[in-house]
Amino acid sequence: MTTRPDPNRQPWASIDIGSNSFRLELARLSGDRYQRVSYIKESVRLGAGLDGEGMLTEAAMQRGLDCLTAFGEQLVGIPPERVRAVATQTLREARNRNAFLARAEAALGHPVEVISGREEARLIFAGVARLQPSDKPRLVIDIGGRSTEMILGKGRKPLLAESFGVGSVGLSMRFFADGAYTDEAFRAAQVAAGAELEEALTLFRPELWKEALGSSGTVGAVSHILAATGQTDGRITPDALRWCIAQCIAAGSQDKLQLPGLKDDRRPVVAGGLCILYTLLTQFGIAELLPTKGALRQGVVFDLAERLQPSGARDPRAGSVAELQKRFGVDTAQAERVATKAEKLYRELVPKPLPEPLRELRWAAALHEMGMLVSHHDHHRHSAYLIGHVDAAGFSTNQLQRLATLALGQRGGLRKLESQLADANLLDSLIALRLAVILCHARTPVVAGAPKLERADKQLTLRLPKSWSGEQARTRYLLKEEAEAWARTGLLELVVA
Amino acid sequence: MTTRPDPNRQPWASIDIGSNSFRLELARLSGDRYQRVSYIKESVRLGAGLDGEGMLTEAAMQRGLDCLTAFGEQLVGIPPERVRAVATQTLREARNRNAFLARAEAALGHPVEVISGREEARLIFAGVARLQPSDKPRLVIDIGGRSTEMILGKGRKPLLAESFGVGSVGLSMRFFADGAYTDEAFRAAQVAAGAELEEALTLFRPELWKEALGSSGTVGAVSHILAATGQTDGRITPDALRWCIAQCIAAGSQDKLQLPGLKDDRRPVVAGGLCILYTLLTQFGIAELLPTKGALRQGVVFDLAERLQPSGARDPRAGSVAELQKRFGVDTAQAERVATKAEKLYRELVPKPLPEPLRELRWAAALHEMGMLVSHHDHHRHSAYLIGHVDAAGFSTNQLQRLATLALGQRGGLRKLESQLADANLLDSLIALRLAVILCHARTPVVAGAPKLERADKQLTLRLPKSWSGEQARTRYLLKEEAEAWARTGLLELVVA
Repeated sequence: MTTRPDPNRQPWASIDIGSNSFRLELARLSGDRYQRVSYIKESVRLGAGLDGEGMLTEAAMQRGLDCLTAFGEQLVGIPPERVRAVATQTLREARNRNAFLARAEAALGHPVEVISGREEARLIFAGVARLQPSDKPRLVIDIGGRSTEMILGKGRKPLLAESFGVGSVGLSMRFFADGAYTDEAFRAAQVAAGAELEEALTLFRPELWKEALGSSGTVGAVSHILAATGQTDGRITPDALRWCIAQCIAAGSQDKLQLPGLKDDRRPVVAGGLCILYTLLTQFGIAELLPTKGALRQGVVFDLAERLQPSGARDPRAGSVAELQKRFGVDTAQAERVATKAEKLYRELVPKPLPEPLRELRWAAALHEMGMLVSHHDHHRHSAYLIGHVDAAGFSTNQLQRLATLALGQRGGLRKLESQLADANLLDSLIALRLAVILCHARTPVVAGAPKLERADKQLTLRLPKSWSGEQARTRYLLKEEAEAWARTGLLELVVA
Repeated sequence: MTTRPDPNRQPWASIDIGSNSFRLELARLSGDRYQRVSYIKESVRLGAGLDGEGMLTEAAMQRGLDCLTAFGEQLVGIPPERVRAVATQTLREARNRNAFLARAEAALGHPVEVISGREEARLIFAGVARLQPSDKPRLVIDIGGRSTEMILGKGRKPLLAESFGVGSVGLSMRFFADGAYTDEAFRAAQVAAGAELEEALTLFRPELWKEALGSSGTVGAVSHILAATGQTDGRITPDALRWCIAQCIAAGSQDKLQLPGLKDDRRPVVAGGLCILYTLLTQFGIAELLPTKGALRQGVVFDLAERLQPSGARDPRAGSVAELQKRFGVDTAQAERVATKAEKLYRELVPKPLPEPLRELRWAAALHEMGMLVSHHDHHRHSAYLIGHVDAAGFSTNQLQRLATLALGQRGGLRKLESQLADANLLDSLIALRLAVILCHARTPVVAGAPKLERADKQLTLRLPKSWSGEQARTRYLLKEEAEAWARTGLLELVVA
């Protein structure tokens, strides 16, 4: 007989499902001290498996699934709330993403969240800011397999985060697919990279920062080559990059390239990475780029730990929701009335609610009227569009999609939600939100004598207070329409008593 | 031989394609004085021809087309810029709208614009404000066939305009389809109308206005009955409405109803209209509703005359565009750079441009970055969504759709525009806007030595200044990509020289 280990003694687990590599890191945190327990990196090169139609090939998926199965074995015994797997550019792009994600989650044994480019950038910065702290304003660059993230930040605060659609795998496939290293190919790749990174020059202009750091894959690999060849002590300079590119062109092709420090799994993508690096350094006038500790996977751990703070006050998503309310001029008094009412109904429906669905419900209530900035008419559809496309720090794409679904379903017919209604968790949140919207429709402080929701199998009963009189005739009418809407789904019966 | 009449002596023509009636009014304006030349009203009851699937039946379409053909004959000789036809709720709803609109335009011989409910409300107010001026804050109510417009305004300024999806035709079809007048049917119809108008009670609460006016169809018909029966002098009071409803119930059915002043073409929809009126009066505590001069058709004439002011300064659409830029935090300096550059290129492409497409191009440029409020990523798609769904005074739905198409097409591949590219006028605007976006991509004041655009049949040549050097390498790269994008359409060849 074994005693169950103390969950607070368990490590945090972060899985980075990148376009070039998959990474698993287990770590412990004590206060702000980050202690790596173990680290595995696999060159899956998922991003090279995107075909011309934007579909992941079966072979690429299989490589990814094999890796995730192996990772899953390392996660046995770690409480699920301490595990987070995030996927980046290749899965942002892949049109058959959902099919892969379902298999990936089964293989890993944990949910896999696709995060936006900006969210990726912010998490990278969170990792760098903690593991290599500084008070100087700094530019952090992370050249990934199919995207390049750039973050301007100071201390722990990311001031500006952006993601650009150019990375080492993508650029290498486009300009060095045949493995030939010519002067022309390098030049063309640099022009293409420059065009993609054009806007960065304005957004991250050099007067805004004092030092430039490079995180993760390409930067680490190139830094390693420069140190191994004695070109520099590891820092990346324009001169050293010119030397690397000259070595490539002199070798003539990928297989003939002999560079000390160049690992075999980096070989197919090094040329593209060099072009992006060189373009960035010359474009920004960066004299030297320092490789840094801290990357996406560590940012994920810090973010997860902040989310789990008991008060929830440090959850970065709470700040995002407040910022969105402000940006889109939401009537926060009404949002709060709906959130409070929705939470009350949800707790009546789900006696022991988990913290995350409750948070999601309150955030959906906070944002459900965002679309009013566009138009009163059909505002639920506009809210759904905005939530589904907005850049919101801390949220994964999946979670924003769930919030968008709740916003879309806040009122009107239920046919528009179709497949999502099969998700029982979502259903409970949806009912709570819809009833709250109806009960708060007068947009005035909610009167005492609140209705109570009861569940008996597939029948929900909303008991209205006896004290309700003719004044609430319209509420009754809307509730009757609501009962009819649910009756049409055949999923449950709503009785208004 | 006849001499061509002075266009300024020609009347203005306004066509209101409503859900119950189609109306044609010819009028002259001298200064602010409105002088009706002629007026035709036909009970087409288009809104009763919407089937359960939201499709207009062929019979209803044919009734509409016959009427528009007759209207078209009245328009011979009137300059097209003095004619405007607007369509309201039924065509906002009809799923086969586009098929009908194409036939309607052919029958009428002029474009037909679908306007949003709020735009309809604002135009109604414009009519009322000019024909029955007052300095008091007032509530104007227009109960149409399938929607009810409400406007709060003072002087000529509409402060709040809203449209609600309940009207005399729709409500009558739903609760009095069999022609039976029962106590229950009247009660149920009032509850349904009350639920639809619920939000109006908060938005237009009585403390905001001093007098209530009713415009157009239902109000006019009921007022006429009340005057004819001696119940009132024409003003509409809750008592008088109760008397009317009692008369209906006493008669028992539509065909047995004998009310002096009730015209036969109003008979099928009077019950629904009474329910909406009674609901509004009791809900808002309106002691008396005064029928007013001025309606949609007159508002259209005033609006058209303002648009045609030579300076364009009084065009209400210019104010809307500025308001949208503010609401969505647009970088107006960049918008102005793009607008100026786009106009210059358009004038090189179209030597004698018409004023309206030029205005559209400038507005598209003014709004093309609206989507940045949502996210930098794919902002052109967000801009298109917002422009396509936003409430913007003065614009028809069709015109907003064209602006949205331009915003969507501002960058990236052209495949997404597909069918729209067949429209040669749009194509010229699109080319000008896309090139302007590229030439202004640095977001800095545009340098001297501007490129020049030349057209020779299907070949466009963009001549870059000789002075351009390496600094513009990225612009050249983006222009090369642009040429490739056009080459893929097969529509034209763009040469960058």
